[in-house]
This record gives sequence, C-alpha cells and structure tokens, in this order.
Amino acid sequence: MTAEQLKKQRQAYNNKLIEADSFFKEFSALDEKAYSEGAISKKNKELMGLAISVVTRCNECILYHLETSMNAEATLDEIMEAIKIGVIGGGSITYPNARFALKMIEELIKEK
Amino acid sequence: MTAEQLKKQRQAYNNKLIEADSFFKEFSALDEKAYSEGAISKKNKELMGLAISVVTRCNECILYHLETSMNAEATLDEIMEAIKIGVIGGGSITYPNARFALKMIEELIKEK
Amino acid sequence: MTAEQLKKQRQAYNNKLIEADSFFKEFSALDEKAYSEGAISKKNKELMGLAISVVTRCNECILYHLETSMNAEATLDEIMEAIKIGVIGGGSITYPNARFALKMIEELIKEK
Amino acid sequence: MTAEQLKKQRQAYNNKLIEADSFFKEFSALDEKAYSEGAISKKNKELMGLAISVVTRCNECILYHLETSMNAEATLDEIMEAIKIGVIGGGSITYPNARFALKMIEELIKEK
Amino acid sequence: MTAEQLKKQRQAYNNKLIEADSFFKEFSALDEKAYSEGAISKKNKELMGLAISVVTRCNECILYHLETSMNAEATLDEIMEAIKIGVIGGGSITYPNARFALKMIEELIKEK
Amino acid sequence: MTAEQLKKQRQAYNNKLIEADSFFKEFSALDEKAYSEGAISKKNKELMGLAISVVTRCNECILYHLETSMNAEATLDEIMEAIKIGVIGGGSITYPNARFALKMIEELIKEK
Repeated sequence: MTAEQLKKQRQAYNNKLIEADSFFKEFSALDEKAYSEGAISKKNKELMGLAISVVTRCNECILYHLETSMNAEATLDEIMEAIKIGVIGGGSITYPNARFALKMIEELIKEK
Repeated sequence: MTAEQLKKQRQAYNNKLIEADSFFKEFSALDEKAYSEGAISKKNKELMGLAISVVTRCNECILYHLETSMNAEATLDEIMEAIKIGVIGGGSITYPNARFALKMIEELIKEK
Repeated sequence: MTAEQLKKQRQAYNNKLIEADSFFKEFSALDEKAYSEGAISKKNKELMGLAISVVTRCNECILYHLETSMNAEATLDEIMEAIKIGVIGGGSITYPNARFALKMIEELIKEK
Repeated sequence: MTAEQLKKQRQAYNNKLIEADSFFKEFSALDEKAYSEGAISKKNKELMGLAISVVTRCNECILYHLETSMNAEATLDEIMEAIKIGVIGGGSITYPNARFALKMIEELIKEK
Repeated sequence: MTAEQLKKQRQAYNNKLIEADSFFKEFSALDEKAYSEGAISKKNKELMGLAISVVTRCNECILYHLETSMNAEATLDEIMEAIKIGVIGGGSITYPNARFALKMIEELIKEK
Repeated sequence: MTAEQLKKQRQAYNNKLIEADSFFKEFSALDEKAYSEGAISKKNKELMGLAISVVTRCNECILYHLETSMNAEATLDEIMEAIKIGVIGGGSITYPNARFALKMIEELIKEK
C-alpha cells in the first residue's frame, strides 16, 4: 500500500475504534497528552516516537511518526538520526523497517 | 542490585567483551556515533534512548540512559516525559520497568 | 488480503508444513490440546488467544482467534473486551493490530 | 526476591509513579477499567492477563495476575491452563517464566 | 509480493540507505563480518540467521537467510531443521512466519 | 545468582512443571527432538539456540545453551561467534545479555 492508502485506512479504523468503544477514545487521549509539547518539545517527542517505531518494528507507527515529525518541522537529518538510533538499538532485524521508512519518506516528500 | 553495583558490573563486562572480540569495539563505536551530538542534540538522543529502553523493557539500558541523560543536563521533567512515552508506547507490561526507572532515579539523585 | 484469502492461504500452508515434517503435526496437536475445553472454557481460551495475538502483534493469529472465538459463540462485546486487554497490555504499538482486528470482524460478520 | 518483597516494592513504586505524574494515575485507571467485570468475567480477564504475562515474559506481571486471579477465585487448574496457553503461544523462551510462575504459586499458597 | 519483488525492493532500499548515511554502510559491514566464515561455517551461520528470523518473526529476514543459506549449499533438510528450532523457541505466534518460509522456499526452488 | 544456583533452580522447577502437567513433558520432548542430532549437528543446533537466546534476551536460556553447547564440544570461538550473531541481529538492547553470557562462560569454565 502507498503512504496515502495507509493514512486513509488508519483514519477510518481509528474512527471506528472510537465509535466502537470509549476505551479507545481515552487511550488515544492519553497517548496525545504524552506526546504534547512539554519539557521535551513536540518535535523531539515525535522523533522519539519514530525511533520507538523502528526499534519495535511497527511500520504503520513509522509512517505515523514520520508524518507528525514532519508536521512538527523536523528536518530530514533529524529524521535519519532517529531512524539510526532505532536501528542500532534494535539490530539488523529492524532493517526491513528502516527500508520501509525510507520508502515512506520518498512518498511523503513527493506529496508536498 | 544497586545502581552503583550495576554500573560497575556493566563497565567490567563491557571491557571484557571488547578484549574478547573486536566486534564489540566496532559495535560500541557505531552505537556511540549514533548517539553523538548531531541534528538532534546529545540530550534529546539520550532521552530517546531512555524511551526505547522502557518500551523494549531493558532495565540495564534504562539505568545507562538515565545516567547519560543526566550527564547531558536533562531535567527530571524531561526524564519523566521520556518514560511516559515509553509506557504509552509499550503498555502496561512496561510498568515494572517504569518502577525500576523511578528507583534508579532516586539512587542516582542521592549519589550526587 | 481479505479474511477469505488469508484463511485459504493459512490452510494450504499449514497442510504443507505437516506434510513436510511431523514436528508441525505434533506442535499443532499440542497447541490444540492447550486450547481445548478444560477448567477454562473453549470460548474463554479462544478470547485469551485473541488477547495474546493483539499483544504480540500477530495479525494472522488475530484473524484465526477471531474465527475460533466466533465459532465458540463469543459475542462481539466479549471480542472487543479481549482486544482492549491486548491493547492496554501492549500499548499504542498494538493500535495497527486493533485496527486490523476491527477490519477482519467486519469481513467475518459479512460472510455469515 | 520473594513474592512478598516483590509485592511491597510494586506497591511502593506504583504509589510513587502516581505521585510523580498524573499520567500514571490515568493509565492505571484505564488498565483497571479494561480488567473490570464485563461481558468477560473478572476471573477470566485476570487469567487472560496471566497468559499475556507469560507470553510477553514479564515476571512481575505474572506475580500480579496470579494474585488477582486467585483473588477472583480462579482455581489452580485454571491458572495452569492459562500458563500453558502462554507457553504454547510464546515457545520455549517462556519456560523461565513458567518456572517463575510455579515458584510464585507455591509462595502464594503458603501465605494463605 | 513474490520473492523476486521482495528481493528487488530490498536491494534498491539497502542501496538508498547506504547512500543516505554512512552509518548503514558501517552497520552492514559489521553484520557481514559477523556472518562470514569463521569457527562456525558460513552455512551454519546463515541457518542460524534463519532460525533467528523465525523466532523474531521477521519475514524479509527469513527470505534473505533462505537465499544466503541456499547459496551456502544448505540442504532443504537443514533449512527445515532451522525453521523448526525457530518455531519451538518462539511458539505458535511464529506459525505465520513458518508458513511464509515454506512459501518462499517453493518460489526460490522454482527460480533455479 | 551464580550459574550453579540457576542450574539447580531450573532443574527443580522443570521437574515440578512436568509433575504438574503432562503438557510440559510433551512440550519438552518436542523441544528435545528439534535440538537432536540431524541434518544440522547437535553442536550447531545448540549454538543456534544460544544465538536465539541472545536475540530474544533470555538469560536463563543463554546459560542453558552455553552448557549444552559446551557439552556438545563447542569451542569458545564458536560460542563467541554465536553471541555476536545474536548481538548484531538484536542490537544494543542485547548488550546486557552478551555481558551476562560472558559472566556465565567464566563461571562454567571455572567449574570444569
């Protein structure tokens, strides 16, 4: 799937989860609060989320945090550094996710 | 084990790994390079390492990145925010590691 | 892939694994025994399997345990509760799998 | 550490987490809600939590869900079945946690 | 995706990673060194990599180590034994990856 | 705990698991069969188990496969190569386990 298709599907099913059960609304609210501007800036938190997404090998999370990092004005250099911290932490089994991240970066840049 | 004992044991066996095989010297060098000051500051990279350590539930890694975050002048607020990002990402199975982090923070503050 | 396609592929390759090596026959038999009606009911075991599938982020396992839960007369409310227990346990990195579960539930309900 | 010591330490640091940051209060509240009596009984949810704890190899979580399962009147047979479902799901790397579970069961039974 | 498509995409993005940042060149070099002929033969190291790929549930890694194992003259019996060691280690949540491995083996054999 | 204490505890609780439920007897038998001499030699299978134990960060598994590798006449060079393959696969979060492996190797060599 393309970045665009993945984003649409994420949005549709996040909405359905929230409609299905208030738990998901509360969980998402807590997640948003943890990622909101604070002692650590929004941008650095989203880059942190990106590194976590690489180390836990979660491709949909990678796409999400690439988007939010870019929205928070993260540069390509910062994004690559976050990916590298994910890879050194999680080892060669994270390589498929680093490749996926690069593919999504290409698509997100083209979209703009 | 106390933070102090864990640190000593880590140091001793990191040295032994390096003596045993050059692989560990090269891997550590690559790790250090990934965590060095760059587009992302040293402090924010160490906080990133802390969040990764919580989400991957690695207690020895938590202690290490608490030390390096503090050495890079991270505040207690920043440290707590990194831990929270780890917990929301990794869920309630990371609670034992969040508790461990708090225990180590107490010991590291006392040491100073 | 649709639920239907995933099911066909699972069945085909489970058969091939068993043909290829008796190990897989014995492993599957042990798995079936663990999930058979016992002190815990079949239904509650399958819901347990569903929660495990979410927390371990295994989409093919999610589809399988959705089917077996429904076959064991689990209600939609029970299924959603098992998914929630998976999500709170495994954190926001399990969200893609919760979304996948919801998508599969839609397809399985339509099939009936 | 004994079950008794682990329980005390858990309680102390859960309290400290809540004092340190309201996030942990909200996360715990959400966790409690997910595990409360519902379409699935409290007992079956705690056994589900136990199976998840084995498959994710979280010893402190195992002790916690052993306690809550017993408090919800789970029998030893039900507890063993939940552990087996964890082991078949997570494989031989969960054996150390199955052994730990058995050790904790012995201590919890003695305490009564 | 077919084995052929997956291989092409891997090659393309590995190249892009290396072009994007020298980190990936150094990491790959270290990985290659760890997998080179030594006290353990190249063939047995690649089979080891295959078992690791199954237990960590990394499909792209599975395809890669299937190719390198075959290139190192591993037999089908050896490959199946490595997969079984992965499955017994990682449990039933690795079944989707064992099925994927078998599907890739079929395609790789056909290609020859 | 020392290697000696860990071994005793493992033996005691493996026996108790088998007494408690035939499932554990059957699972262990299947595990033993997967690790028995075959197309891949016993020694190379145990080294494979060691690499898996490092990448999955299971310390008790590391000690077990160090013992079985040594019993199968694996040399120290082979053991270090298996550990390195675990570390490059699983990244810097496996360092605590590589250090643990080295500590256990020291104790096991002394015992002889």
